Formats: sequence, structure tokens, C-alpha cells
Amino acid sequence: MKIFYHPDKEEWPAILKRPAFEVAALRETVGKILKDVQTQGDAAVLAYSRQFDLTSFNDLSVSAEELDAAASRLAPALKTAIETAYRNILKFHVAQHAPVQTIETMEGVFCSRKSVAIDRVGLYIPGGSAPLFSTVLMLGVPAKLAGCRRIVLCTPPDKTGQVHPAILFAARLVGVDAVFRVGGVQAIAAMAYGTATVPKVDKIFGPGNQYVTAAKQLIQAEGVAIDMPAGPSEVMLITDDEANPDYVAADLLSQAEHGPDSQVILISLSARLVEETLKALARQIETLPRKEIAVRAMASSAAVIIDGAKAAMEMANEYAPEHLILATKDAETMAEGVVNAGSVFIGGYSPESVGDYASGTNHTLPTNGYARAYSGVSLDSFVKKITFQRLTPDGLRAIGPTVMEMARAELLEAHARAVEIRLKDL
Amino acid sequence: MKIFYHPDKEEWPAILKRPAFEVAALRETVGKILKDVQTQGDAAVLAYSRQFDLTSFNDLSVSAEELDAAASRLAPALKTAIETAYRNILKFHVAQHAPVQTIETMEGVFCSRKSVAIDRVGLYIPGGSAPLFSTVLMLGVPAKLAGCRRIVLCTPPDKTGQVHPAILFAARLVGVDAVFRVGGVQAIAAMAYGTATVPKVDKIFGPGNQYVTAAKQLIQAEGVAIDMPAGPSEVMLITDDEANPDYVAADLLSQAEHGPDSQVILISLSARLVEETLKALARQIETLPRKEIAVRAMASSAAVIIDGAKAAMEMANEYAPEHLILATKDAETMAEGVVNAGSVFIGGYSPESVGDYASGTNHTLPTNGYARAYSGVSLDSFVKKITFQRLTPDGLRAIGPTVMEMARAELLEAHARAVEIRLKDL
Repeated sequence: MKIFYHPDKEEWPAILKRPAFEVAALRETVGKILKDVQTQGDAAVLAYSRQFDLTSFNDLSVSAEELDAAASRLAPALKTAIETAYRNILKFHVAQHAPVQTIETMEGVFCSRKSVAIDRVGLYIPGGSAPLFSTVLMLGVPAKLAGCRRIVLCTPPDKTGQVHPAILFAARLVGVDAVFRVGGVQAIAAMAYGTATVPKVDKIFGPGNQYVTAAKQLIQAEGVAIDMPAGPSEVMLITDDEANPDYVAADLLSQAEHGPDSQVILISLSARLVEETLKALARQIETLPRKEIAVRAMASSAAVIIDGAKAAMEMANEYAPEHLILATKDAETMAEGVVNAGSVFIGGYSPESVGDYASGTNHTLPTNGYARAYSGVSLDSFVKKITFQRLTPDGLRAIGPTVMEMARAELLEAHARAVEIRLKDL
Repeated sequence: MKIFYHPDKEEWPAILKRPAFEVAALRETVGKILKDVQTQGDAAVLAYSRQFDLTSFNDLSVSAEELDAAASRLAPALKTAIETAYRNILKFHVAQHAPVQTIETMEGVFCSRKSVAIDRVGLYIPGGSAPLFSTVLMLGVPAKLAGCRRIVLCTPPDKTGQVHPAILFAARLVGVDAVFRVGGVQAIAAMAYGTATVPKVDKIFGPGNQYVTAAKQLIQAEGVAIDMPAGPSEVMLITDDEANPDYVAADLLSQAEHGPDSQVILISLSARLVEETLKALARQIETLPRKEIAVRAMASSAAVIIDGAKAAMEMANEYAPEHLILATKDAETMAEGVVNAGSVFIGGYSPESVGDYASGTNHTLPTNGYARAYSGVSLDSFVKKITFQRLTPDGLRAIGPTVMEMARAELLEAHARAVEIRLKDL
């Protein structure tokens, strides 16, 4: 961990600089896979699955029997935990329902906005070293709440063609309509274009490696919506003398274990806290199963000792972290100053891992500084907001002259006449 | 106008097919301009402005004096109209403010979501044949309401370097912070990267030609957010025997005059209505100033006679029009069935042009079928929704076992320990 003492503001950009997350170089490789799936459908999906995932199976669909059997293959404690997380996520997201509001902007001019579910959505759950069933909850709960008519899920199987039962259990719990054992670029392609087996969707959600990210970028340019751009996961902490160094070290490590490219930045108002955190880190890291990964991530991490809460928050807003932990005495007041962040954890009893799994907030969040302009996934991500207007004859009489005046000033005479021809009859 | 009588459902895709809106071919040209502005700043912006807009000036900034003088250069009737539209747009968008809601998902687990303005936004207003001051209102009103700290506007000047006073008047009315006389790809580049004169922004809004669209796509892939992907403007009408053919013809023409690539589709439950609309069209088109454009757009338009309101709405949802006009007896009931559309106009007294200018709804809407997954611009477009969680010791006690169970099942031990180390102290 590199330590910076009281850096000048001019030094901030260099300290906060993220490594370039470059997917442009992958576009050609990824583009070819997309094209092949678009033209050859399931055959290309199966061929790429065999090539990349080393699996051999012919049935992309996970059967109802496999879904049924998942529950019996899970430990009861894990089932209970998943159900508890499910309830909290449901409770937080159900409150995001926006009722239709009708505004009478002028007498007789009634305008409203209605949230309507995106019809068909695709959820991508990556494979790799662990079964990310928590992401099934984070995407599936709002999809179902929104009322999406068709929710499909793609996830890579293991070499025997199996999908982890926790993923299947979570998929069934949230109400996913169909699960397909396919991962990588070929999964994104199948959902973007549709194949004989995998239905085409209107929007694709979910994390993935840089190939999946490149595929999502390319299909977005072709008109299929995606949840948000992606980069490596990251956490920033703001701490002071009252923070507990053991907790701070544990929080840093819980981010560092994600991957060697995980971004970890510790801001502190106290040099002593940083020193003690480093000692705690050295102790805690030794016994971690993913120690090697954490060591590599921590090597490129930074600790910054800074003067005053105001400057600390300014630095956080400049960085725009995916996760921001406020472990200071006045964390609640400080939270009011957050401008750029994905999700914020307030006080010593709110570690990031509670939000990753079960507090109820969504863990699909903007990384790579995207928090400056993007929100995390929410119910909003699964709906369109359609506007409506209905004018009475009086309403058109009231607003008509305004519309005609403006249309003519923009040299759009037919726009003016569409009003005029009606006003003549009134 | 091509007429289709009672087409089978298998024929729908061919009838509803939009011409390809291809911007990929422009990427090289556009990419070079982006790169030049990124590396050479204002010098490149000025050079490209001279080359493409044929203007010669050295000051990109519109001065306070020019902004001041705009009001005196406008007819009072136009000023009043702009102010009326402004008030309606404000009234509709202010109701979109989402209050912070705190949900206690479990005892002692407090989660909330807060809308925070995107700090710096850029509004692009195209030049061309007419001054699109209405778009200044549509983008500037929600930007200001959201509380964006810095709102900049770029628009191409005329050959003498002047910006139309209606654009300046609207910019000052909504509270834009700075106006720059620059258009095209160089304007998008200047706002995406920042130059000595034009500040870098976090998100870019506004319509434009295919070069501007390509530029927005490219800078989106580099991490600057954009409002939405774009294509030619379009309208779909659903009509029945009770619709007024003169009104229907006027509505079709008000879309057709936008450009030769405007998309116009008339669905009708009544063959008679289509026939009479065609007669009215022939009469009305003759005296239009933009007749040539409208004639070209109408040549590629379609009328479809279809059986029953249900099938008509199904066709509309399949097409996902930017604008949908419901000119039927039961338009209000019908509106409840809309799943895919940008903005909907209900009944005979609600022509599209009222929404284009002054009803209060936003006219920046998804085209090209994007209404399946995208919303029009709203207050939401100018904020991020940041989530917060704060746990009490009891809250962590309640949720801790769930988090640890799930983290360990995902093989993320450090995540579990960040909870465990705290629980030990409680």
C-alpha cells in the first residue's frame, strides 16, 4: 500500500488515477463471435461454449427438473440466508415504484408519466471461481417487481455442464422464466440477437470479464440496451482517529479479494489510524484463502492522509468510487456531502459486504468513475417511463397560440397547422 | 403512402421495418476529429468550425452582452410563447423530484436512495435550417431543476458567427451557465474532453445529425454518458372511423416536414378514414413551405388497415414509436395498453406538436425502436440515484449471519470476516 501524506490538490489526479480499463482491443475478436451467433444461432453458441468453457452438452436449456432439484442440493442455512437477502432486497426495491402522477400544466392540458416494464430482459451471471447467486437476486428481484414479461438468465456451466444449485435456487426464487447454460460473449450474443433456443431480449444486465464488457458495448451500439458500462470493482474509505483499524483492514481486504485489479483507496484524517490499519492488514491477510489475489490488489492500493473532513469528501467526490465507506465519528453528517458514489456505507457497523449481499440496496453499481453520471441498478433500470398528454378543447384553445408561435419561429409550419386546423373547428 | 389492407401478422415486420440508420461508417472520420480536439483543444475546435460551418471568429464564448441583447431582438409574442412553454415544462418536470425514502429492511438496517445532480452537463443544440430553441427548454429546464452545478450549451453559429437570439433567450431563461458558438463533432469533443475555453462535462444531451450521433456513440464508449441513442424522428397514429381526416393528415404532415427520413405510419380500423385522409393530405401538402421534404417523407410512409383495436395496439407496441397518437373514440382506454412508445397523444385535441413545444412533457424521446428499453429525457436523466445504508449494532447482529453464509458460499471469505470481526466485539 502506497502512502501519501497531505498531498497537494495538484497531486490528487495522479493518486486517484485508475489503471486504463481497455476493451477496444478486444472488439475484433468479440465482434466475430457476435456475428457468428447472429448468423448461425445455436450452432455457433454451442461451438464457442465447447471451445471456451470446455463443456460438452447439447441442451442449452436448464430443465424444469434441474431447477426443481436445486433446492434439495443446498444446505438449509444457505437457503435461509438467500431467502433473507431476497426479502430485504425486495423490501428496498418495492419502495421504488413510482405512481402515475397526472399534472394539469394548463387548464385542460393533462400530462402524465407512467413506468412500464421493459418487456424482455436478459440477466448475465458470470462463472469463474465462484457461483455469483447474489447477483441473481440483485437483478432478478427488480426485474420481477417491474413486471418484465420475460426474464431469461444465462450463466456458464461447469465442465460437466452443470449450473451451481445456488444460482438455480435463486433464479427460481426471484421468478426467472428460463435459465440457459451458456456464458461469455456467446451468451451476450444469444440474448442480443435471439437464437432458436435463447429468446432475443430488449436489455441485458450483469457483470462479466472484459470480453463480456466489450460484447455489451458492441451490442449497445447496435441498439440493445445494457445496464451500464463496467470496470473493476473498487472501494474508498474515509476514516478518522475513531475508526477501528481492524474493521478498516477487514473492509479493505474484502474488496481486495475480488481480483488483482480491484481498486482500494483509504483516506484518513489520522496518520495513526493508517499505521495501525497496516499492522492489522498484515495480520489479517495471512489467513485469507484468497491471499494471493488480495496481496496483488493491495500492492497497487493507496492510503492518503489528508487534513479535514471537507478535503476528504472532496477527494472522494473527485474519485467517484463504486463503494464509499464512511468510518468517521460524524459519518452521518458527512454522508450529506456525497456527490459522486455508487453506494455509501455509513458508520462502523456498515461494512461493504452487507450491501454486497443482504442490506437491501443493489450491488450492481457504477465503477471506473462512472458514478459521476450513472446510477446503480434499481427498479428504474427495468422500466421505461412513457409520457402521455390529453387535451380538452379548452386546453387546446389555451395552449394553441403558444405552439403556433413557436413552431413558426422554428420554421415548422405544418406543426403550427396541426393546431390551427383544430382551433378553426372550436 | 403505401397502403396495406389487413396484413397477416407475418407481414408486420416487413411493413414496420425502419431504414437502417448506419453511423458505423462515419466512425473513422468522426474519431479523427475527436482525437484532434482531445490533443489540440480550442485550436482544433476553431479549425473544424471554419472548415465545416464556414464561420470565421476567434471567440468561442457567447458574451454576457450578447446574451443580454437577445431579448430585445425577439418579437414580444415569441417571448411570451417561450415563457408559457417554459412554465408548463417546469410544472411537469418539477413533479418528477423523488424524495429520499428511508426503508428499514430489517430491524436496525436503514437503507435509502437519494437523487443527486450530475455535476456538469453539456447541452447540444443543432443548427441547420431552423433555431431549435424549444430543445433548449426541454434540456435546460430539467438540468436546472436537478441542480446541476454547471450547465453548458454548444450550438453552431451562422456564417457571421451569430447564434439565433431565440436560442440565447431560452438559454438565459432556463439558467444555462455558458453558451459556446460551436457545433458538430467538434462541439461534442470539446464537451467530452474539455478545452481551455469549453469545460469538460460528465454527460452530453441533445439531438444532431449522423455525425453528431456517431460522436456521441464514440465518447459514450470512452466513459462520458449520453442521453440516449438517436435515429430519425417518427410518428405512428392509431385511428378509427370517428377520427377527423383533416386532423390526421395535419398530424402526419407535421412529422413528415421534419426531414425526408422522417418515419410516418398510419394505422386505421377504418378503410374510409384512410381514403379521406389521403385526400386531405393531397390538399394540405400543396401549401406547405417544406412541401418537398414532406413529399419525400410521405413517399416512404405506410398506412395499414387493421381489424380491431387490440391488433392495432399490438402493432404499435411491436413498432415502439417515438410519438404515438391515439385518435380513436376510446383513446383513453386504449392508452392503457401502450407498452412501447416515447410519448403518447390521446384523443382528437392532442396533436403531436403540443408535446413538441409546450404541453409540458419532454420532446427528447427514443426513436428507432429504442422506446422498447429507453425513456425520454426527464429529471431522472440529470441525476444519479445514490444508495446509502447505515446499520446499528443490532442491525449488524440481525443481518450478519446471512451475509457470512452467503459470502462463504461465494468463496469470498474476507467478505464474511469483515462482518465477523465486528460481531465478535458486540
